[in-house]
Amino acid sequence: MQPHESARGPHVLRQINFGAVLRAVREHSPARVADLMQATGLSRPAVTRAVAELRDAGLVADVDETAQVSMGRPAQWIRFRAEVGHVVGVDVGSHKVIAMVADLAGRVVASRQVTIGEGATGARLLQSVRDTIVEALAKADLTGEDVWAIVVGTPGIVEETSGEVLLAPGIPGLAHLPVMDELHTLTPGPVLIENDINLAVLGERWCGAAVGSDSLVFVHWGVRIGAGILIDGKPYRGAHGAAGEIGFADVFSEPDAPDPLPLVGGGTSGVSEWGAFERMVGTQAIAELADAAHAFTERDPRALLSPDAVAAVFAAATEGDPTALAVVDRIAGRFARGLAAMLLVLDPREVIIGGGLSRAGETLLAAIERHLRPRILTSPRLVLSDLGSDAVALGAVRRALDHVEARLLAHPDA
Amino acid sequence: MQPHESARGPHVLRQINFGAVLRAVREHSPARVADLMQATGLSRPAVTRAVAELRDAGLVADVDETAQVSMGRPAQWIRFRAEVGHVVGVDVGSHKVIAMVADLAGRVVASRQVTIGEGATGARLLQSVRDTIVEALAKADLTGEDVWAIVVGTPGIVEETSGEVLLAPGIPGLAHLPVMDELHTLTPGPVLIENDINLAVLGERWCGAAVGSDSLVFVHWGVRIGAGILIDGKPYRGAHGAAGEIGFADVFSEPDAPDPLPLVGGGTSGVSEWGAFERMVGTQAIAELADAAHAFTERDPRALLSPDAVAAVFAAATEGDPTALAVVDRIAGRFARGLAAMLLVLDPREVIIGGGLSRAGETLLAAIERHLRPRILTSPRLVLSDLGSDAVALGAVRRALDHVEARLLAHPDA
Repeated sequence: MQPHESARGPHVLRQINFGAVLRAVREHSPARVADLMQATGLSRPAVTRAVAELRDAGLVADVDETAQVSMGRPAQWIRFRAEVGHVVGVDVGSHKVIAMVADLAGRVVASRQVTIGEGATGARLLQSVRDTIVEALAKADLTGEDVWAIVVGTPGIVEETSGEVLLAPGIPGLAHLPVMDELHTLTPGPVLIENDINLAVLGERWCGAAVGSDSLVFVHWGVRIGAGILIDGKPYRGAHGAAGEIGFADVFSEPDAPDPLPLVGGGTSGVSEWGAFERMVGTQAIAELADAAHAFTERDPRALLSPDAVAAVFAAATEGDPTALAVVDRIAGRFARGLAAMLLVLDPREVIIGGGLSRAGETLLAAIERHLRPRILTSPRLVLSDLGSDAVALGAVRRALDHVEARLLAHPDA
Repeated sequence: MQPHESARGPHVLRQINFGAVLRAVREHSPARVADLMQATGLSRPAVTRAVAELRDAGLVADVDETAQVSMGRPAQWIRFRAEVGHVVGVDVGSHKVIAMVADLAGRVVASRQVTIGEGATGARLLQSVRDTIVEALAKADLTGEDVWAIVVGTPGIVEETSGEVLLAPGIPGLAHLPVMDELHTLTPGPVLIENDINLAVLGERWCGAAVGSDSLVFVHWGVRIGAGILIDGKPYRGAHGAAGEIGFADVFSEPDAPDPLPLVGGGTSGVSEWGAFERMVGTQAIAELADAAHAFTERDPRALLSPDAVAAVFAAATEGDPTALAVVDRIAGRFARGLAAMLLVLDPREVIIGGGLSRAGETLLAAIERHLRPRILTSPRLVLSDLGSDAVALGAVRRALDHVEARLLAHPDA
């Protein structure tokens, strides 16, 4: 084969081999060349060359031989230098910011959570995001200079290339904030912004309730409702970054009810404050249903909207309280209706229920199952989130690591 | 670079080059080597070798030089031998079977449509499918021996690898019929079975209303309702081959209405006869709405369920009849509700409305647009099907051609 026959040839192969050996050494570190040959299926010369490139790039190092016990001449052990770089995953929510710092092996080395006041919009919100990241880095004795990538998850619809938050009904003042510009002053590394639920599904696939799943829907169920979709193991964003917005589906009104007010164009944030589905079955609707059913007889009605109030209903249901059980059954029935519409469209293999309601536990899960099964044609596995409120930040870490890896593969010498 | 360094190297490149040149010569036939170099970006030796392989495989031939006018020494012209093989695309519907025969360039050289009687189930249905194919081939002076692939589209959920029709509420007796076994006695080529709407979307992308689209939803709207989904240019089937079954979505009942009877497990075909959405907005519901609105005062009520009756409503609406316009507005509003739920989940770039209702024309399309826009967050392009009742068969032809091409790339010598 002549080198000039195709411009794609040796270069592509070198990249493929480099990537395969990088993944193998990261997974099996420390490893010998023979281990890496077995893990990758590559020949000894190919592995040796890739290891040399990885060593030049500072990504692997030889393990000190005296640390190894061996008969005869010791084989050379190579370890992945996970500590050579770090990434930051950030979750910007309506009430809190979480920043997690991880090394290149994905080990979280520091994290920081900051509560955001109701009025924190615009510049103050931006400052909180920045401060949270800086404080998390400081806990790990790092600065922005050490960061190879930052990924920020926010609610709303995010434009893929610019990272601009186009619509964010959940956080007034977030849309069109210069998050990326602000964070670029913090680090020379790349900054990516992504819809939070699209990151949560990545987190659960990485180390949560559906490890390695190739066909997964993550439904965030809290005050708001939205879904992250994973197809062939990759996030599905839709043509305009707006896939999974099931919270806006209108599945309860009468057949010939008048059209709703337009979703887009109204409200202070450019999008309708609430979707029809989340209005009927979000945390607030649950609290109202529970109140109407007198499941809160001894509570202060002003506590109704706190997460504790909703948690109390599920606790009572788990203990067998008939009023609470009836409330749980009713909201599970409503939730199943909207979930079924989405599952009939997507037919995923696995469904994770996340967000605040994932803490409601097995009583709620069983009720959803009961109402869902008659409404769908196939049988996806239905589970609760493993990662809870860490899902978005962990997904952001995963996304940042993927970005770093893609850059390394494209420019191994950089 | 050593040949032993990676087993994937030269072989993969040879396949890539072979495929690139195959596509280029098919598209530009007849073409010169220089044209193919330009179309593929490959070097002259790479193109020349691929052309030699294609010639050995019988897929290209040199054009007779005397047919070309040229100053000086004529360049060699190569043409794609589209006539060397044929494929068959079949649409098995509840009332008809269509078979189309196409050459390897995708040119339809013969087609045959046969009406199926109400009672045609089991062996008789199978025989009709076979007869329709044989008759279509005979019109092109071909037999099953000449066929490189047959793809059959049927309603229902089709198991991907076995081609078994698992659930087919639309055609009683179709589920579990040995369609593949029957057709394997007709041709030595491969036989594939696929959901009809998944094929329709391929057809529209190939030569219909959304040529080349990478993000497309095709909604079949007739007696039944279902959708074909195309993501990154490829059909999305879901984890169990059941994606797009929006006809079963329950988007009209009251919030706390009791659950429906289970969709799966009932009825003679193992699945509920009708989905909630199609029951409210399928052709039959339209006829009933029109009847209730006295849009048919001068018609025989028994004609209500014929396609003509529904067509009459749309014709009257187009002419400005207020009663008919009100009916169209009402069904468009209902349809928009279910369509919105799907579009909020998928966020496609383009939406095609196909099936019988696609013939209703611009009056219906405008009414759908009006009811849909307030209900969604993004702005997909909404169009009517270009291919009408040919969409499934043409999509089956496209799928068969893709299958032939994939086999050629994997085994160029076969």
